[in-house]
This record gives sequence, C-alpha cells and structure tokens, in this order.
Amino acid sequence: MLGILGGGQLARMSTYAAHRLGIPVAIIARPTDDNPASHVTHRTFLGDWSDPALLEQVARECSVVTLENEFVDPKALAWLEAKGVKVHPSSACVAMVQDKYLQKCALRDAGLPVPRFAATDTVADVVKAAETLGWPLMLKCRRLGYDGYGNELLRTPADVEPGFQKLARRGSALMVEEFVPFTRELAIMVVRRPSGEEAVYPLVETVQHAHVCHTVLAPADVSARTQARAEAVAREMMRAVGGTGIFAVEMFLLADGEVLINELAPRPHNSAHYSMEACATSQFENHVRAVLDLPLGSTAMVVPAAAMVNLLATQAGPPDAKGLADALKVPGATVHLYGKSASRPGRKMGHVTAVGSNIREVRELALKAARCITL
Amino acid sequence: MLGILGGGQLARMSTYAAHRLGIPVAIIARPTDDNPASHVTHRTFLGDWSDPALLEQVARECSVVTLENEFVDPKALAWLEAKGVKVHPSSACVAMVQDKYLQKCALRDAGLPVPRFAATDTVADVVKAAETLGWPLMLKCRRLGYDGYGNELLRTPADVEPGFQKLARRGSALMVEEFVPFTRELAIMVVRRPSGEEAVYPLVETVQHAHVCHTVLAPADVSARTQARAEAVAREMMRAVGGTGIFAVEMFLLADGEVLINELAPRPHNSAHYSMEACATSQFENHVRAVLDLPLGSTAMVVPAAAMVNLLATQAGPPDAKGLADALKVPGATVHLYGKSASRPGRKMGHVTAVGSNIREVRELALKAARCITL
Repeated sequence: MLGILGGGQLARMSTYAAHRLGIPVAIIARPTDDNPASHVTHRTFLGDWSDPALLEQVARECSVVTLENEFVDPKALAWLEAKGVKVHPSSACVAMVQDKYLQKCALRDAGLPVPRFAATDTVADVVKAAETLGWPLMLKCRRLGYDGYGNELLRTPADVEPGFQKLARRGSALMVEEFVPFTRELAIMVVRRPSGEEAVYPLVETVQHAHVCHTVLAPADVSARTQARAEAVAREMMRAVGGTGIFAVEMFLLADGEVLINELAPRPHNSAHYSMEACATSQFENHVRAVLDLPLGSTAMVVPAAAMVNLLATQAGPPDAKGLADALKVPGATVHLYGKSASRPGRKMGHVTAVGSNIREVRELALKAARCITL
Repeated sequence: MLGILGGGQLARMSTYAAHRLGIPVAIIARPTDDNPASHVTHRTFLGDWSDPALLEQVARECSVVTLENEFVDPKALAWLEAKGVKVHPSSACVAMVQDKYLQKCALRDAGLPVPRFAATDTVADVVKAAETLGWPLMLKCRRLGYDGYGNELLRTPADVEPGFQKLARRGSALMVEEFVPFTRELAIMVVRRPSGEEAVYPLVETVQHAHVCHTVLAPADVSARTQARAEAVAREMMRAVGGTGIFAVEMFLLADGEVLINELAPRPHNSAHYSMEACATSQFENHVRAVLDLPLGSTAMVVPAAAMVNLLATQAGPPDAKGLADALKVPGATVHLYGKSASRPGRKMGHVTAVGSNIREVRELALKAARCITL
C-alpha cells in the first residue's frame, strides 16, 4: 500500500495513477481539511500527521509513503523512516526544501543559479540586506508560503516596517531576495528514483494571475539553449537537495535567456497537469513509479502543444460546475474536476487541458472550455 | 452519485473516468465477488442486487445507475427506475440483450445482419433446426454465456445429445445458430445519450485464444466499405435495442467483406480498452458522459495504431505481478493492473496497450510488455 500525506487534488490525481498500476492507496489526511482524494480510494487515515497512533497505523499498512504537500512536520516523516517505511521525498530533504532559506542555501552552495538572498530576523536585517540587494526587495516567509501568500514586495525603505509586521504575523521566520526583472516564468519537472534513474519533463511557461498559476503552455517557447540549461539545472537541483519522487522547479527567465530558480516544490505540481494528456507518462504516474522505485516512463510530449488553464472558484458554497456540458463540447479539451465539497473564491476546483498542433490554438481551446464552467 | 452494478475491472475503469469529471461513484457489488472497483472509491454497497433494502439505499444515494455486467436481474433495474433513478441501459433493454435469442430476434427484425438462428427447447428442436441451418451448428445458452462458456460447437448429429445435456446443466434455455465461416473477428463500440447524441468508435480486430480475447488491433485493417458498414450496423443496432450508454458489437468478417453481428455487450468492453491511450475520449469516459446525458467526446484515434493484450493469470494465489518493472521499460506500452485479490488460471488480471505508428510495431510492443508480466 502506498500512503499519501494530504488529501487534495495532487493526492487525488496521484491516486488515479497508482490504481491504474494496481497499487492500493491510503490517503493520510487531516479531518479538518476537505479531502477530495479520500473519495477515490477505499482507505483513508484521518488524523493529525504528527499523532503517533496515526503514524503507527500508517507504518503498519503502508510500505511506501509520499506527500502532496511539503508543509508536513519532517519529524513525522523521520518517525516513519525509523519504522522502516520508505519515505520519498525523505524527511531530510523535506526539512530543507520547506524552509526557503535553507533551500536557497543548498542550491547556491551547489553552484545553481538563484537570486541573491539573505535571512532577515529583524527589520534592521532587511534594511541592511537592501544595501547589497537593492530595491525593490522580495520579503518572504521562509515557511508555509504558497500562491503568493507569504510574499511581500518592498518597493522602498518605507515598506519594510509594515511588510515585516504583516508577514511576521504568519508565524514564520523571514528572508529577503533581490527582485528579479524576469521576462517570463517557467517551470520544469524532474523525477528521480531512489536507485538513481532520473527523467526531466519539457520546460513549460507558466502565466500567473494575482500570484496564482492561471495558464501553463507546453512546451515553453524558448531557445534550445534555455531548454538545455533548465534541464541541467533541474537535474543538478535533485542532487543538491537529495530529491526522490517528482519535483517542480519554478524558474525566472531573464532577458538574456538565462534562468534563475525561483522555488522548488518536492511533489507533483500544477504546472505539469498538462502531462496527463500531453506526455507519454503523466507527472503523477512517474511520481508513483519513482517512489515505488519502478522504471520511469517517457516524459516526451505526444502532441505538438498543450495548454492548461486552472478552474478557480468565483463564489462560496457547494460547487455545481455550471457549464460543464458546454465545456465538454470543446474539441481537444479535457476537463478535470477535483470533487471538492465547497467552493470559495480563488480556490482551485479543477483544470482544463487542451492538446493540439500549436500553442495559439490550444491556449484558445483551453480558455474557451474553462470559461464555460462556473464554480 | 453514479452507481455502478458490479465491482470488476470495467466498473473500476469507469470509476476512474467519473472521478476525473468530479462525479462521485458508488460500487454496488456482491460480497461473494472479488470487487477491485470497490478499492478505487470510498462508497460501496455490498449485497444482493435484488435485495430491496440494498436497492432502497442505492435509490436514496444514486441519481444514475449503470452496470458493468449485463447479467443482472432486470426486475432490480425496473425497481430502481420506478423509484425515479435513471438507469442506463434500461431494464427493458437489458432484459432483451441478456437473452441472446431475444437479442437476435430484435436485430433480425430490424433488418440487421445476424447468423440464422432458432430457439431450441429440446434435443429434437436442435435436430430439426439443423435441417435448415446445416452442420456444424453453434449451440448456445441464451443467458449467462461469456468468453466461450455456454457455447458448444456441434459438428455432427452425434454431438447434439451430449452438447445439449452439457449446456442444459448451466440452467439456461438454449438456442442454435448457423456456423459462420468468418475470416476474422471484429468489434465496434457505439455510445448513445438518452437525449439521442451518438458516437461510434473505430472498428477493431479482436484475436481470441481459447474463446478469450487475447489481442485487439486498432484500427482494424479492413476496407472503407466494411468500416462504414460496421458503423451503420452499430448505430442501427442501438435503435433496435433501445440502447443508452456504451455498447460493444462483436462481429464476424466474411470473405466478401460483409459483417454479421455475433453478440452485443451493453457496457464497456475489453475490445475498447485501447481507447484509454489511443482515442481522444476513452470508452469509459464516454460511457460515463452518456449515462449522465453529458455531451460525448471525440472517439477519434489520436495515434496511428494501437494494440491491446490481456494479462491473464497462469496460476492460482495472490497476484504479485512479477516482471512489472521490465514491462514498464517497454516504450509506447502502458500497463494496467486491476488490483484483483487473487489469481486463478485464465483470469483477466490486467492489460497492456501499446501505441505507435503502425499495427505491426504496436502488436510487438504490447506482446513484449505483456510477456514480461507473470500473474
């Protein structure tokens, strides 16, 4: 049995992939969360991820444990490892990656391209860092940030005090990074088995609206040099952090074609949902294969172009996916709904992927299908 | 909630498709069966399909019910219909299709091409039918036959008495059909919404070993005239039997390019598993869409060729899928394992589909991957 920590859409889609390979799946989820992944398997452990009784039960039934969410206590993962459960990514890796400062240190120390950064425990530290990093500055929570939550752009020295106070309330230590004048945002997935086999997905372009991934275009329209550089960076990153399973590397593309690593996600990622329809092996299947140490499948695209558009809720209440029938009529588009029990504005409720012969066409098709659906 | 009567691999793969669309699924299964579909959803009703208490519960939770197995009591389906549950295919359709004699009568009366046949309640009826139909003759159970079980080839008058006694023990009335000197076996899927929209999948060739489907080749290498004829027959068949949801039409190809209907299956079918990787919309997704009366997706192939090979168990005991790692290395091949709890010789435990540029290539790849796996 494969155990997955977390019960959201990434766990749900990983579960589909495991089931197709005949692998039983247990979802390990918090009762306070909406857990749509628990609807697609017959085994769910509900409880706190750090509760020894829960972990005991997980260790008894699951030989391998992975996660859909890096914000788990690495001590819980270490406890499972000590019980002989194979945990991918490992507790040590997760401990490093979930702290953006430690993550960036590891990447920098491995010679990988990252924005300049500094840990900042006080307002004075931020002011001091600005002397080196310049303005504007990105102030970030070291932990628990996602989709723009936990980041604050500081444009002038006057922004430091209020920005620091705002983020400090989130309960995480803070850090700053230089502001990167990127031209586009890119992402690439890399997957690695514990025994070493590794594969990289095509580089994609991600388009954010209000800090949330809105559209993904695959492949990214970049030079062969940028594609090769991104692949090399992704592979080297896995060694730098000791990654197993699938990881996303979010990158900034600079005007000169160079890339800088923005952030890592040690798990399946929104930017690779397109792989379900557009690649020989989806990110979810390769993640499952990797954590079970099974041979990886081809990551090549099987269509010339794909576009993914997220379906974000616009209202609160029970989701009824109005317009689904219209969306299903759009040729080349595949609709995914996550089965969440409640909408709230901005919540990811599903996505649409369109495949076709060129990026312009598939972006139009994916947007057309996505616009049909109100959640 | 969508209810599926039956807990085997067809229900399991239909469940995957429903979940992707955000549709919750309940499996309605007999506790005496191995029910791998019940492992991929959180809701299972265990009991006898004719138990009023079970049906009451199903009617309370499921707005639509379908099936993976036509051998259900049509009275149970009619009971659900009377309670306002949408049942696809309908009780009337299932009652007709599950009796091969009534099925053949409906097809013949609609002018569709079927082998000549007769109901035979006694040995004398069989001998009498032979005067018209000639030798050899196919003696068949009208109900509950599958994969060659319930069929007996009668070569000479001396075979009638023992053949009749053997099949009569299966508890079904019998019928005879003329023996069809077919050159190949074909199959085609047709899917229809209650509101009328209809779609047909490509015609495929099925290769049986010992009456069990072994390999499926898509598309079938036949003339455009045969393809068009098969499509027209499939569409007309749906009207003749009042079908809703997806149906398989198994056909005999004759030397002159004509087709004869062999049998119908009012459900997803082994011959279209290839559609999961090779068609824009899988048979399972279109079945789910049809029974929910949602617009159908394109049935077109997205690759030039596909081959599917069944994974049959060769031994009894707990299945451990030896060789899975080797199978996963075969390029273009996708492995499906059904998660059954026990092997027994000949049991369908999974399948492999390979996609590629031509039939010869994909058949080799699918066979290569399938041969890796011992179950």
